[in-house]
Amino acid sequence: MGNIKDYKIATLGSHTALQILKGAKDEGFSTICICEKGRERPYKSYGVCDEIIVIDSFKDYFKIEPELIKKNAIVIPHGSFVAYIGTDKVMDIKAMHYGTKAILDWESDRTKERQWLSAAKIRLPKVFKTPEEIDRPVIIKFHGAHGGKGYFLANSPKEFHERYESYKGKEGHERYAIQEYIVGVPVYTHYFYSRLTGELEVMGFDKRYESNADSIGRIAAKDQVEVGIRTTYTIVGNSPLVLRESLLPEIFEMGDRVVEASKEIVDGGLFGPFCLEGIIDPELNYYVFEISARIVAGTNPYIEGSPYTWLKYNEPMSTGRRLARDIKMAIEQDKLSAVLG
Amino acid sequence: MGNIKDYKIATLGSHTALQILKGAKDEGFSTICICEKGRERPYKSYGVCDEIIVIDSFKDYFKIEPELIKKNAIVIPHGSFVAYIGTDKVMDIKAMHYGTKAILDWESDRTKERQWLSAAKIRLPKVFKTPEEIDRPVIIKFHGAHGGKGYFLANSPKEFHERYESYKGKEGHERYAIQEYIVGVPVYTHYFYSRLTGELEVMGFDKRYESNADSIGRIAAKDQVEVGIRTTYTIVGNSPLVLRESLLPEIFEMGDRVVEASKEIVDGGLFGPFCLEGIIDPELNYYVFEISARIVAGTNPYIEGSPYTWLKYNEPMSTGRRLARDIKMAIEQDKLSAVLG
Amino acid sequence: MGNIKDYKIATLGSHTALQILKGAKDEGFSTICICEKGRERPYKSYGVCDEIIVIDSFKDYFKIEPELIKKNAIVIPHGSFVAYIGTDKVMDIKAMHYGTKAILDWESDRTKERQWLSAAKIRLPKVFKTPEEIDRPVIIKFHGAHGGKGYFLANSPKEFHERYESYKGKEGHERYAIQEYIVGVPVYTHYFYSRLTGELEVMGFDKRYESNADSIGRIAAKDQVEVGIRTTYTIVGNSPLVLRESLLPEIFEMGDRVVEASKEIVDGGLFGPFCLEGIIDPELNYYVFEISARIVAGTNPYIEGSPYTWLKYNEPMSTGRRLARDIKMAIEQDKLSAVLG
Repeated sequence: MGNIKDYKIATLGSHTALQILKGAKDEGFSTICICEKGRERPYKSYGVCDEIIVIDSFKDYFKIEPELIKKNAIVIPHGSFVAYIGTDKVMDIKAMHYGTKAILDWESDRTKERQWLSAAKIRLPKVFKTPEEIDRPVIIKFHGAHGGKGYFLANSPKEFHERYESYKGKEGHERYAIQEYIVGVPVYTHYFYSRLTGELEVMGFDKRYESNADSIGRIAAKDQVEVGIRTTYTIVGNSPLVLRESLLPEIFEMGDRVVEASKEIVDGGLFGPFCLEGIIDPELNYYVFEISARIVAGTNPYIEGSPYTWLKYNEPMSTGRRLARDIKMAIEQDKLSAVLG
Repeated sequence: MGNIKDYKIATLGSHTALQILKGAKDEGFSTICICEKGRERPYKSYGVCDEIIVIDSFKDYFKIEPELIKKNAIVIPHGSFVAYIGTDKVMDIKAMHYGTKAILDWESDRTKERQWLSAAKIRLPKVFKTPEEIDRPVIIKFHGAHGGKGYFLANSPKEFHERYESYKGKEGHERYAIQEYIVGVPVYTHYFYSRLTGELEVMGFDKRYESNADSIGRIAAKDQVEVGIRTTYTIVGNSPLVLRESLLPEIFEMGDRVVEASKEIVDGGLFGPFCLEGIIDPELNYYVFEISARIVAGTNPYIEGSPYTWLKYNEPMSTGRRLARDIKMAIEQDKLSAVLG
Repeated sequence: MGNIKDYKIATLGSHTALQILKGAKDEGFSTICICEKGRERPYKSYGVCDEIIVIDSFKDYFKIEPELIKKNAIVIPHGSFVAYIGTDKVMDIKAMHYGTKAILDWESDRTKERQWLSAAKIRLPKVFKTPEEIDRPVIIKFHGAHGGKGYFLANSPKEFHERYESYKGKEGHERYAIQEYIVGVPVYTHYFYSRLTGELEVMGFDKRYESNADSIGRIAAKDQVEVGIRTTYTIVGNSPLVLRESLLPEIFEMGDRVVEASKEIVDGGLFGPFCLEGIIDPELNYYVFEISARIVAGTNPYIEGSPYTWLKYNEPMSTGRRLARDIKMAIEQDKLSAVLG
């Protein structure tokens, strides 16, 4: 039987590192936090790591990777990890890596992501190829440098052409995507799928706290118009949420289908934590915009467990800890390769 | 002394069943979940029930009721239970039923509900009999099939007549109610009243997460108008909330008066969990729109206890568990009839 | 070694008293709650106090102070305490008082507060001396009795003059302040600094629930304009929040600088709980509007600990309990004067 004392859990100090490292320690692991210079404070203050490796920039990850390998560390990827290393470099990781590396390519490429979710029969917002097809409220998003933050709304081909008029001929506004505009509330669903238990778990839900989207509603409509406010979506934090219980059977089935479909696209398929990100409309249809194939920051409100994990576990079970337990189980069953990829 | 091993706790698999069943198990009860076919997954996954009874539709409840009676099950009603069985059928329930059946008629009939809350001196939004009486912001809601989701706002008789013009003569828009429009934040207060302890407890607070009401504020005012968005109020979930502490004395007194007034309208009065649902305005007046005379889904964020129950109990105390404890106490004191009705 | 049995913890029954008293009891202290007549219920119901002293009004605090002194009680100040006693009377408190009294003068005086925060290099919204300087969105707030709730927005000197026209010559609208209008989400950061450990802790975050600011976004823009709604900011409650993890290093540094700067303005500086209250904009700049140099009601969601305190402590640690532990440590190390001021 393998011994967890022979391994260490390591991650980059950002995103969900506090939760991952705390969860690993709670499961009995020794932990390493890789921090950018001058940004170690939270990890020291909360006492979640046994060791800190300081680097100038997360982009220098590969410089210290040999050290991780020497220490027999298992690296846990998270959103910032993928963002800093670069999706194209993920396959170059030589250290032990929790989760299926190849799946990260499918979550970061919009076309592949849509293909995966479609195969899993997930409800996606409709995409319109030409303005003439518009038959419901749509959002028009511009591609390219200048248009990155630009968008407008329309209900019909006529409205499209009227409103597009003011963008016509402007640099960065030649190319656009026309997407069905779903009006409803954002819901982020946190899943965990273990290859070892063969079980899909629903860990919880959250809603994001976005600047300024989540505060412009606090400004009276009249004042908004006067100051000319446009919506932006910078994530600042997350808030806890529970879902209407009658939606749970569908939530489980959506997760099952995503895991099932993943097996067709990458060898071995998806496992560990993942998240479906979407909108639930007034008819209770859940439209999914995006999938994250790794732990999401929306699990951070639940460091001491979510209302859902407390149903299943008689101890605090964050997603970070659940993940560490998966690794622990693999080590103790001599199946470590089942959680690496 | 009665023994809880001679009883089982049963409920329909929806609404607050996870919390009710978990709470019952934590108190030592054996539990039964009645599930609609194909919708058992959450109850199995979270491990909250010892037994599952599958039926085609919750409407078939009475078909399996003999089985529940045979198993000596105590049925816990919740929102979905009442909705599926039908308020008119509640009195036909033959199985042991936690709570006062007759009170459910008073919460589901708008006129009776208003009568009850008025008797309890709860602050209610004013109702206007004719448009000519309008002297403040009002909301006009249509009755009937087509008008179910329709409403408009007005500040004066003049505005009323101007805006009603566009609905005039349209089917389903002949009848309407004119209600004072309270501008303030929604607050749902969770109470528990035990006949055995004689004590009223404030278990916590929540706010609902409604589609699309809780997201249209994320859309800039200008864009809202362009796409022609109207507010809808489908409940998708719930979020935790604590209330300004200086409001608590009044919150307790409101609960006391509701319990007191209930004794005048039904034999034995209200007991167990209930909820006042309303709006707190900028002058801190709490206007109540509705009462739920049973457990509400707003308690679901607190499966491991709310900030308020943690003050009182040195263990996790959800409303579902509190309710199971009430039954346990009744059984062990040989007063079971005190919690049935 | 001092013995905590020789002391009692006392506070006024409002604001954060439930948390303070529960925390004190958890640390082993005997507690006293000073309640206004008829408002004792919550403190009795939740069982957080060993003794209740009833007074007609919190303004009568000084009448019962000799009793507190006789009982060797340490008084814990909170927002309502300061509001009722009056900032000018705080220095007259003769009972043992947790925290630096003199600092309260700096948090309640807008000019001094700005001076303190500037010295700490905290990012503040710009203040414009004349309308002619306006070069970005600004909010114009009126001083004085009638104008207390009034404000308007402008983008330029021209807009200022156009909109001010309707207020001109009206009583209470002669004097106004012009402040940069930061569009972003409100974030309240809870700190704790202990003189005994020399450590600054980040205890958590919250967002307020304000009537009607947090509900007008639920009203469609068109309807808002029709009913003529203006934003108000009455605090009704608080909701839990976690912050994007990559912001934490800066959050710690902001707290350090505020503590450091406080040593220059009052003898011994600030210690115990404090809170920075501000807005995080879409570029993730944290603008601070206000500092509270004592426990804030935003910590009330965390009576059983916050996601952050659960990282550091293996037991529930509210801010109220942390504060009691600070006192306990001081007593047991015979350094009580280090936590009084």
